[in-house]
Amino acid sequence: MQKTIKKIGVLTSGGDSPGMNAAIRSVVRTCAYHNIECIGIYRGYQGMIEGDFKEMGPRSVNNIVNKGGTVLKSARSLDFKTPEGRTKAHENLLKAGIDALVVIGGDGTFTGGLLFNSEFDFPIMGIPGTIDNDIFGTSHTLGYDTALNTVVEVIDKIRDTASSHNRLFFVEVMGRDAGHIALNAGIGAGAEEILIPEENLGLDRLLESLQKSKASGKSSSIVVIAEGDKIGKNVFELKDYVEANLPEYDVRVSVLGHMQRGGSPSCFDRVLASRLGVKAVESLLEGKSNYMVGLQNDKVNLTPLEQAIKGKSEIDRELLRVSDIMST
Amino acid sequence: MQKTIKKIGVLTSGGDSPGMNAAIRSVVRTCAYHNIECIGIYRGYQGMIEGDFKEMGPRSVNNIVNKGGTVLKSARSLDFKTPEGRTKAHENLLKAGIDALVVIGGDGTFTGGLLFNSEFDFPIMGIPGTIDNDIFGTSHTLGYDTALNTVVEVIDKIRDTASSHNRLFFVEVMGRDAGHIALNAGIGAGAEEILIPEENLGLDRLLESLQKSKASGKSSSIVVIAEGDKIGKNVFELKDYVEANLPEYDVRVSVLGHMQRGGSPSCFDRVLASRLGVKAVESLLEGKSNYMVGLQNDKVNLTPLEQAIKGKSEIDRELLRVSDIMST
Amino acid sequence: MQKTIKKIGVLTSGGDSPGMNAAIRSVVRTCAYHNIECIGIYRGYQGMIEGDFKEMGPRSVNNIVNKGGTVLKSARSLDFKTPEGRTKAHENLLKAGIDALVVIGGDGTFTGGLLFNSEFDFPIMGIPGTIDNDIFGTSHTLGYDTALNTVVEVIDKIRDTASSHNRLFFVEVMGRDAGHIALNAGIGAGAEEILIPEENLGLDRLLESLQKSKASGKSSSIVVIAEGDKIGKNVFELKDYVEANLPEYDVRVSVLGHMQRGGSPSCFDRVLASRLGVKAVESLLEGKSNYMVGLQNDKVNLTPLEQAIKGKSEIDRELLRVSDIMST
Amino acid sequence: MQKTIKKIGVLTSGGDSPGMNAAIRSVVRTCAYHNIECIGIYRGYQGMIEGDFKEMGPRSVNNIVNKGGTVLKSARSLDFKTPEGRTKAHENLLKAGIDALVVIGGDGTFTGGLLFNSEFDFPIMGIPGTIDNDIFGTSHTLGYDTALNTVVEVIDKIRDTASSHNRLFFVEVMGRDAGHIALNAGIGAGAEEILIPEENLGLDRLLESLQKSKASGKSSSIVVIAEGDKIGKNVFELKDYVEANLPEYDVRVSVLGHMQRGGSPSCFDRVLASRLGVKAVESLLEGKSNYMVGLQNDKVNLTPLEQAIKGKSEIDRELLRVSDIMST
Repeated sequence: MQKTIKKIGVLTSGGDSPGMNAAIRSVVRTCAYHNIECIGIYRGYQGMIEGDFKEMGPRSVNNIVNKGGTVLKSARSLDFKTPEGRTKAHENLLKAGIDALVVIGGDGTFTGGLLFNSEFDFPIMGIPGTIDNDIFGTSHTLGYDTALNTVVEVIDKIRDTASSHNRLFFVEVMGRDAGHIALNAGIGAGAEEILIPEENLGLDRLLESLQKSKASGKSSSIVVIAEGDKIGKNVFELKDYVEANLPEYDVRVSVLGHMQRGGSPSCFDRVLASRLGVKAVESLLEGKSNYMVGLQNDKVNLTPLEQAIKGKSEIDRELLRVSDIMST
Repeated sequence: MQKTIKKIGVLTSGGDSPGMNAAIRSVVRTCAYHNIECIGIYRGYQGMIEGDFKEMGPRSVNNIVNKGGTVLKSARSLDFKTPEGRTKAHENLLKAGIDALVVIGGDGTFTGGLLFNSEFDFPIMGIPGTIDNDIFGTSHTLGYDTALNTVVEVIDKIRDTASSHNRLFFVEVMGRDAGHIALNAGIGAGAEEILIPEENLGLDRLLESLQKSKASGKSSSIVVIAEGDKIGKNVFELKDYVEANLPEYDVRVSVLGHMQRGGSPSCFDRVLASRLGVKAVESLLEGKSNYMVGLQNDKVNLTPLEQAIKGKSEIDRELLRVSDIMST
Repeated sequence: MQKTIKKIGVLTSGGDSPGMNAAIRSVVRTCAYHNIECIGIYRGYQGMIEGDFKEMGPRSVNNIVNKGGTVLKSARSLDFKTPEGRTKAHENLLKAGIDALVVIGGDGTFTGGLLFNSEFDFPIMGIPGTIDNDIFGTSHTLGYDTALNTVVEVIDKIRDTASSHNRLFFVEVMGRDAGHIALNAGIGAGAEEILIPEENLGLDRLLESLQKSKASGKSSSIVVIAEGDKIGKNVFELKDYVEANLPEYDVRVSVLGHMQRGGSPSCFDRVLASRLGVKAVESLLEGKSNYMVGLQNDKVNLTPLEQAIKGKSEIDRELLRVSDIMST
Repeated sequence: MQKTIKKIGVLTSGGDSPGMNAAIRSVVRTCAYHNIECIGIYRGYQGMIEGDFKEMGPRSVNNIVNKGGTVLKSARSLDFKTPEGRTKAHENLLKAGIDALVVIGGDGTFTGGLLFNSEFDFPIMGIPGTIDNDIFGTSHTLGYDTALNTVVEVIDKIRDTASSHNRLFFVEVMGRDAGHIALNAGIGAGAEEILIPEENLGLDRLLESLQKSKASGKSSSIVVIAEGDKIGKNVFELKDYVEANLPEYDVRVSVLGHMQRGGSPSCFDRVLASRLGVKAVESLLEGKSNYMVGLQNDKVNLTPLEQAIKGKSEIDRELLRVSDIMST
């Protein structure tokens, strides 16, 4: 028989992303709305092991809906990979009277949560929080939309100087093994060419494309490169390669880096976070466990955590064609 | 038998919205990609009547993907409401060798286009461009996502001063008869209460909600009000009413106004504009007419213009509940 | 003989402005640097009367340098205008062991501080914090630079829609009786005409200027109007007047309002706040009182509070000429 | 006897910076105001050699006051370093009837202009445009204020993720051999430590400061490093060094790069550009030559180009102390 849930713990884990605070706020306030207690757990699974807990009432999350980062901090926990660590974490949860967990993060976070559930039959609900959008079962992860806006705004600035100097820029963006950020921000920023892990364009095609672009009268160009791209060269080697083969180009490199993870979340990410938090808490209250809440066809749905981990979030191949046409 | 399309005209009409330029760019480049000529028509249907045309090659739309407004300008045309005006417009299209039209705008734009088609059997394809998101057949209109970000950024600033002074702010946002902007931006900005045309909350409920909010320990509040709200008072009268009934509140009013229509488009709007432009041109090339291209379940689809005009873009009622929970 | 200062109180009062938090942080950390205790006083003079105090160590101001508003809140205090109120405030300061005060605000704040000093011989140092830049003795008040950027960014958005529709916009900006914001933001935003309290342009001149502008081929225009402008009509009446006299113009009005007071401070305001906070605390430690710290010729200087209150911060009349030339 | 000036040429040269377009606009409109013709010269001195000229009337610079980059493009010209190149340039100016030049750029631009003047007695006026603020004779170069805002906004985003993960970030900013950007943006962004070329802090001091910071309870830190810093290690080597010596730190590196050169100019830069453009043109009309227009004590002044080139724009050493106190 299922236990009634009276207290829910919430944590953020893995790389932080904009919208995590809005999700924490939503979890906290949905608990309050249903007269459930809510406990914030600091620094992800590590804080669970160390008992780094804090009661969170609805006023404790005032004015964080628009803040980047995570007020609960995040960390990667080696201890949680050990049975001792997880046992300690479980004891802390029991001691604090916590009946269920909402874990906000990506693949690794969900894998940890699923393992924890399998060992202790502890109710878990996942919220996908990562800028990389590489989680199966949701069209958008928290922070992805914000990261896209951050990237296009930065490339807009780079384009100012690129077109003033007739230069070629290689811009490396985040995304781990996924090309979502590169593909969408590349189209949004009007990139000449986009290199993503899912599609090996090949070096010849890149050179050809750049030559065609020059011939067509373009005086400056932006190439957006996903960090996980498999072209076999890093972005600096790529610069050398292109300059060696196309001496008419003066290439500059910009690696955008961690700024992509920060910043005030977009309206979309704030609303998404609010919706996902409500669904996560209410699903736990309905007795569900081991699901991830996500967005599918603009509706909030549940996906089994196991599928979320094993599945692959495919890029929309229509966009490859759109990108191609846009660089006409 | 259907004529082969060799030259496409593109215009923007009605209120402008961020992403219109990205859509123009997409139409122009998709034409170039398919070796079709493209003609820009200035100032909407009025420019069609006045023959204010310009050839647009792929380089003519460099560096506009990130610009607000519309390089083709927009206007409301009284002349186009007369048979003489439309006849003149048709003659100009024929004279210029234009075989089909892409019209970017809202309801009024599509109504004009449909009428024109019915009179002259002239192929028309619509792209929904308005910040109000009030068009049936697409989950998002061009500019809506950008407007949401503009509104939450401004309310974030207002919140700084609201919470420094423990004040109540009434913020009026755009949306014509639709509450999409108010509802989503309200949730995104952490509004205490959201007044939209689709849901008559009633004045009593508003007072009650504000009293509860004060009692719950909130020291400042934001109420977001859609311009088309039907509560029976304009925003300044509402201020007077609340101050009369809740003297503990010092209310300030902010009417956001036209700034919501401008600004550099979000990544989402730029990508959407690129996708819709491709689909619009390619649908015309396939011999289709009288459709609007739109986004449904994250895919680009066609909706008959007639449905787009007659249908109603419903708000997502789940969001009303989310908003309610978030203001716990 | 002068008492050694061991504990300093800090408060913000009057309208809030971006950079106040950075100034609070600077006062707190400068105290820590000199091994002086620092006490935050909430809600300005009202909190002084109510004893709403909090000890502030250097870590208590982490991560606020970039936040708008004021963590110490602000309020206007009627009680402080009474001898009883001020006596109570003095008692609270003595009870808390506070030896000197840094007051952050504008005219009213300084007037209150000076009166308090005259009654109780209590050391006071002022930091000018207001977006209006209307304080004598400093070229820049805290928040002014940020407000200018906010205003030009908003007008940039308005211009997108203005130039898409060939419209005339009247944009009302803050500044109380001073035209600093209107004049500088007007030049920065490329306004056609700027109406400020310091210079009565006259209605005829405005009409003439708009007519000339139309004749010169400008298709859209922005007129920036200071809220304190003395042209004898409010911005809505001005719209009616212009439309009656220049029927070719379709005028839209935008009153920017309180958003101008919020937002993350510009780099300039953050650096200025940091410099002024250091100087304020160190001047108190040197035994000085009744001064305002300010910026003069890029250097931090002291101005007697009395002069700061009585003097007038003149606009730079060169800018009127620049504005005139820019609208050629 | 001095020739009456009837036609002025304007060019941008060297690295581009935000505000260059506003300065071009100001030069063009000031010419129009004085009924002088204005010729835009593309790609700096290279375009002068190639005769790449365009007449610019007051409407040709509509809507560029807020654009980053330079509509006249910029380039570094090797040909201009040869007597043949300069002779050709001079011939082109004479052929086009140009009587005087406004050159917008930095050191290199002014050096070229001065040489050109010495050879052909051609009137030259310089406007300092560079984000580095490394020009003697002006407190602010065009683009510097904007770059500061860009840098602090990006570091604000990085701080979100730094404080969520308790990490140390090394952020490299531009500035060539000058520490102005690093010092001011470092203070503005609340950096723990700032490394600039003008002040060799030394590696020991850096380690010590980081240790102290950890001890004082700070959980995350930002170190801002000027690209021209002389600490003897590049930013990646510095990361390795710190991690080797302070294993408790997990260091991330972010090199901000060219985005610092782009973006819409701040209000300050737009107003400054407007003022400098007016002064540059009017000084030429008064018969002056070989000066740079600049800002000194908030007033626009002239500095002989020779001094501007030879002098050094010193950092404000008060700021080093402020930075030190702020990181208490």
